[in-house]
Amino acid sequence: MPSFSMDCIVNRTRFLNAKLADGTLADLTVAAGRFSAIAPAANTATPPAGAIDLAGQLVLPAFVEGHIHLDTSFYGDAWRPHIPCTNGFDVRERVAFQMRNLEQAAPMAERAKNQLELCVGNGSLAMRSHVMVDADVGLKHVETILAVREKYRDLVDVQLVAFPQSGILSSPGTAELLDEALKLGCDLIGGLDPASFDRDVDGHLDVVFGLAERHGAGIDIHLHDGGTLGLFEIEEIAARAKALGIGGKVAISHAYALGDISPDALAKAGEMLAASGVAIMTNAPGNHPFPPVAALRKAGVTVFAGSDNIRDSWWPYGDGDMLNRANMIGYRSGFYEDWELESAHDLASHAGAKALGLEGYGIAVGAKADFVALKAEHVPEAVVAVPKERTVYRAGREVARQGRMTR
Amino acid sequence: MPSFSMDCIVNRTRFLNAKLADGTLADLTVAAGRFSAIAPAANTATPPAGAIDLAGQLVLPAFVEGHIHLDTSFYGDAWRPHIPCTNGFDVRERVAFQMRNLEQAAPMAERAKNQLELCVGNGSLAMRSHVMVDADVGLKHVETILAVREKYRDLVDVQLVAFPQSGILSSPGTAELLDEALKLGCDLIGGLDPASFDRDVDGHLDVVFGLAERHGAGIDIHLHDGGTLGLFEIEEIAARAKALGIGGKVAISHAYALGDISPDALAKAGEMLAASGVAIMTNAPGNHPFPPVAALRKAGVTVFAGSDNIRDSWWPYGDGDMLNRANMIGYRSGFYEDWELESAHDLASHAGAKALGLEGYGIAVGAKADFVALKAEHVPEAVVAVPKERTVYRAGREVARQGRMTR
Repeated sequence: MPSFSMDCIVNRTRFLNAKLADGTLADLTVAAGRFSAIAPAANTATPPAGAIDLAGQLVLPAFVEGHIHLDTSFYGDAWRPHIPCTNGFDVRERVAFQMRNLEQAAPMAERAKNQLELCVGNGSLAMRSHVMVDADVGLKHVETILAVREKYRDLVDVQLVAFPQSGILSSPGTAELLDEALKLGCDLIGGLDPASFDRDVDGHLDVVFGLAERHGAGIDIHLHDGGTLGLFEIEEIAARAKALGIGGKVAISHAYALGDISPDALAKAGEMLAASGVAIMTNAPGNHPFPPVAALRKAGVTVFAGSDNIRDSWWPYGDGDMLNRANMIGYRSGFYEDWELESAHDLASHAGAKALGLEGYGIAVGAKADFVALKAEHVPEAVVAVPKERTVYRAGREVARQGRMTR
Repeated sequence: MPSFSMDCIVNRTRFLNAKLADGTLADLTVAAGRFSAIAPAANTATPPAGAIDLAGQLVLPAFVEGHIHLDTSFYGDAWRPHIPCTNGFDVRERVAFQMRNLEQAAPMAERAKNQLELCVGNGSLAMRSHVMVDADVGLKHVETILAVREKYRDLVDVQLVAFPQSGILSSPGTAELLDEALKLGCDLIGGLDPASFDRDVDGHLDVVFGLAERHGAGIDIHLHDGGTLGLFEIEEIAARAKALGIGGKVAISHAYALGDISPDALAKAGEMLAASGVAIMTNAPGNHPFPPVAALRKAGVTVFAGSDNIRDSWWPYGDGDMLNRANMIGYRSGFYEDWELESAHDLASHAGAKALGLEGYGIAVGAKADFVALKAEHVPEAVVAVPKERTVYRAGREVARQGRMTR
């Protein structure tokens, strides 16, 4: 059986009868972890030995988790009831609550592992995690999560954002710690509501963009500030990114303001974001305005998706399933038509890959063979049905099935 | 083994180590389809023969599906892409689209069966389905769904609403058809936006309340009208229900208006609804204001949950999983604390049972042994995790597992 021997020699795997997003059936060949051939399904009576028959399952590129917090989740640990802030939502009070919770929690590495396996089990093989850096915790979180990333390197690609959870100017010493975090291996520099938190937009952004330039790092800023204030900050970030020509490496997470400004202001913001290349991350929060996905995409803005918090001190929700997140984004956005459902999926796949700057993403010859196989007729059906029965392949090897790690 | 023999003789089943909502472990005894005993878990070394060990799984009363359309779903049939209305949303245009779709669809009985099994598989063993009645379709839908209900009587309790999808005054002959539908076996009389659709609030409600009185039937009215117009209609419905003393049998589905009126107007509406006994059904729609669940519950209003459309001509969403619906309602309502998550679950369980007037609902001695067992520490965790691995019992007998019918 020559095909078997050859496949063994070059470490080649064949996947038969894969339903592609365009509806066709294909046979996929994987060699050295990448797709080396994609051909119309041969449907031969005697399939090559060792081939895996996907039996018409839909094959999607592995999902991209665009925003997660690996250091703060309690997933898989004891249940920790949420408590409200004493006088309306307050980030500082919430951070204090988080610190009390974390003191009693299982070791961070273990909790991060639980969350990583949850995500991989659901089919996310690339992710961006924010990791808290402030004067209190110093670089402890960064060091722990860097070690976890190393341990899971073969399973999942993790980008780390050095995240000033307690502000930069408000938490003296944080700028230096962020610098150190980037030296240690963080890929991006984060930020947090320059106006409402540090009350100094320029001062905050000077540090963020300064560090990005010095380290050649990307930027991903948490921006919850709403209305015209948030819009002003978005304009400032886009202007700086454009001036430095680094827009493709800059993202704004949440950007709630885009969800509560006038259509005219939104149109202007969309043009500016598209021209700068700055991407917008949303998780389609439940009871909060969020960026209008369709309008921004139409304007040419890269909009991508993330879970954000998963069962932590900020809220109890989150399941680490980016297909369910695409469903939520579609549901919250009023996406009913097939192309709209496909665009919801795009946020958790191709647009996410673009925002994260991933190399070799997709179901294409030369791309990494990181993919998910599940029972759905096409992408729109996958988005509305969110089948939990799915198999996850990393570099062409099965790593999870029905949500559970198999490797 | 005397316990085995006795259990056989009285048709008794024992479920051991059930986690109850209060966190305790209990042994449940079911006789003749009802809970005959609930006792602290005995945890004996030698469990009674034939007993089913639930091994600490959380036991919840079977979910209550408060609003579904058994006649119009394409679930399990060919995928039918959604198309938008030509000039903004228009109910009449949507109904025409639905008629075209239904002409090409699989037989209604088959589609209804698919949807029923989806719901039962997810743990809903009581539901209220609206069934279209108008001058075009006549009683065809009602007759078909009545037959399906009969066939599934042992599996699920179905209430049917004779639903004037094309209005009452706008579709001559409909009043007589609704009368006939109630004679044939429908349990409730429905309605549809008396103001915006029939443009005659009194005329529409005269028919609805008149038929309800004549047949001793309940009432469940679709009300999408927003703002002060919708509020006016809610007031009219509540006033009529109160005057007739039948509020406990009257529900308003959707009631979007409650989601976009001022807090003062909402407070007044809440008082009036609570005093009249009229219940409010919501599915927490994705991109639309909806009734504020917490405020209404605090005012004493019965708020219950439904899927509404499942993959039909109105939208592609819906999974027939009322635990996921509770999750969505919590997510959309900003419910983070444990008691809030429990209240989201209440909409899909006890409050639903109250709105539907179900007898013998709950995990209690004397109640029907219709329940779901799943892996969760408690109700709040079940609501955020929505475990798909669950077993569904009807009258103490397993009917579904992991979403699939086993009986």
